[in-house]
Amino acid sequence: MNIDGKHYRTVWMEDNIIKLINQPLLPHKFEIFNCNNYIETAKAIKTMVVRGAGAIGATAGFAMAQAFIAGQDPNEAAEVIKNTRPTAQNLFYAVNKVLKANNKEEAIQIAKEIADEDAEACKKIGEHGEQLIENNHNILTHCNAGWLAFVDWGSALSPIYTAKRKGKNVFVYADETRPRCQGSRLTAFELAGEQIPHAVIADNAAGHFMKEGKINMVIVGSDRIAANGDVANKIGTYTKAVLAKENNIPFYVAAPTSTIDPNTKSGKDIPIEERDESEVKEMFGLNNNTLSKVSIANQASQAKNPAFDVTPAKYVKGIITEKGIIEPNEENIRNLFKN
Amino acid sequence: MNIDGKHYRTVWMEDNIIKLINQPLLPHKFEIFNCNNYIETAKAIKTMVVRGAGAIGATAGFAMAQAFIAGQDPNEAAEVIKNTRPTAQNLFYAVNKVLKANNKEEAIQIAKEIADEDAEACKKIGEHGEQLIENNHNILTHCNAGWLAFVDWGSALSPIYTAKRKGKNVFVYADETRPRCQGSRLTAFELAGEQIPHAVIADNAAGHFMKEGKINMVIVGSDRIAANGDVANKIGTYTKAVLAKENNIPFYVAAPTSTIDPNTKSGKDIPIEERDESEVKEMFGLNNNTLSKVSIANQASQAKNPAFDVTPAKYVKGIITEKGIIEPNEENIRNLFKN
Repeated sequence: MNIDGKHYRTVWMEDNIIKLINQPLLPHKFEIFNCNNYIETAKAIKTMVVRGAGAIGATAGFAMAQAFIAGQDPNEAAEVIKNTRPTAQNLFYAVNKVLKANNKEEAIQIAKEIADEDAEACKKIGEHGEQLIENNHNILTHCNAGWLAFVDWGSALSPIYTAKRKGKNVFVYADETRPRCQGSRLTAFELAGEQIPHAVIADNAAGHFMKEGKINMVIVGSDRIAANGDVANKIGTYTKAVLAKENNIPFYVAAPTSTIDPNTKSGKDIPIEERDESEVKEMFGLNNNTLSKVSIANQASQAKNPAFDVTPAKYVKGIITEKGIIEPNEENIRNLFKN
Repeated sequence: MNIDGKHYRTVWMEDNIIKLINQPLLPHKFEIFNCNNYIETAKAIKTMVVRGAGAIGATAGFAMAQAFIAGQDPNEAAEVIKNTRPTAQNLFYAVNKVLKANNKEEAIQIAKEIADEDAEACKKIGEHGEQLIENNHNILTHCNAGWLAFVDWGSALSPIYTAKRKGKNVFVYADETRPRCQGSRLTAFELAGEQIPHAVIADNAAGHFMKEGKINMVIVGSDRIAANGDVANKIGTYTKAVLAKENNIPFYVAAPTSTIDPNTKSGKDIPIEERDESEVKEMFGLNNNTLSKVSIANQASQAKNPAFDVTPAKYVKGIITEKGIIEPNEENIRNLFKN
């Protein structure tokens, strides 16, 4: 997608260096972050310079290619890279795929294909999902499952971008998404860039707007989908799903099939990453043009910070994939992988 | 309650000056804010130097007394003071009560009584509510309905303080409560002061902990309760109530009867205050010992910021008042005012 009229992907490789849009700095500053080897790349994933299901996957694929290029042990690299973010299915998917390469040329080729396939799948998610969106729909989304979370296009936002290009009016309510504010920083930045009318709301306000009849549908992304259709996604997703059910609002999950893990039986088997309590107790932002951190909580208090939650399949009306929209259940998910 | 071993109320009058604990500065700095006349006091209410149902009520009562003392038109003062926060029932309750005074001595007397009655009612709420708390209970609360929100003791936290003093072990999950973070700032500050084990969580995480079986009950406060038992409270309260219902967790509202407005038929009749979008787009906190603001959202994006929501009575298992615990319905609420 475009930033100031120039097309970017979130991650690409140039002269064996992995280039990432430095996401913690957005929307305040636009900078490209260089990773010279797989160790640096793994660190960038862990510290969330890059984040989002597909973007993590593509970055992990390129990181594996860096190991091959440097003649390092691919199995050791795979371990290091897999240890960065325990919940993200696309990461495991990409690492395992590149691990099968026989040489560095093949590794580079597979890594590039993973990135290209991610962009292509997201484009198709947009085409399928767009059909669910009616003119003048108000859509709630949580966290950032836009193009910054993938290589291009995004998952949850791709149907919205496609609807807009087809001339439909849409309005997006973007959950702030504490603690890391991917909604108010990244989703809002993307939507403004694509000139889609939107408003940032505190995570607390989504239920109120649903009850008031202001929201027609919910679309979110996912970090891992289990074989039974349970969906792991950013903390707070489960809450929106329960609220949507209570208010008879359809709740959709948009994700490429690379996010689905047929080996994870149900949501109970998805490990939930606990992140540092400083994410809750401090906020990072712009003060007089300088990026700085403020302490926002009582410092003597502890904080708990689960980064994801699991939304049971029963709350999900449909999963929008590049292969079409399915009701989430074991059979439908099995069939996705037969085609 | 105590701060560093010294007993404080949130609001009191000294030599015709209203003294307020300056709440936006907490927990970073402890300062007393002086209001020399009712105009200054009204401004302090509007800008939330003082906030919370009972604290606003007591402050409004003292502000009316200031008008009487200064020989100003009490009806004009009442208008100005009522126009500060449209949702808060205790504010209207206090203003109307002092408005009936025949002279300044009476006005001062009534204002003092409102403050004393608030403290006394909250103490009783603690005694009634404490009986609902079992040893080793984990309790979720939203926003700050502690002593800082009242004159003393608080509503939602009063049962917890009482349980602790009776020797029960309790653990409190304190919702951060964006956008103004009254949970991570004020509730956490209060709980730490009373040495009650607790953790701050992002508002997004409450549903996850409920689903995981980590929360035994929810207690929140209220800014206005309608005649049918619908409850207006800080934005996000409705969300917690829906999540509690979905997870079979009892959801209680603690409030003195002064928060109940028998003239408001249902939640639909409660005006919901819209506050400035800067509360969502900026955060205020401590940076190198200096209080400062950081911009945390995409600046080109708008934000919507409803300050309250309405929780329909059907989600509320009980309202804990100074007169006892009632199931919220018209008859029970009518009976409260007969006694």
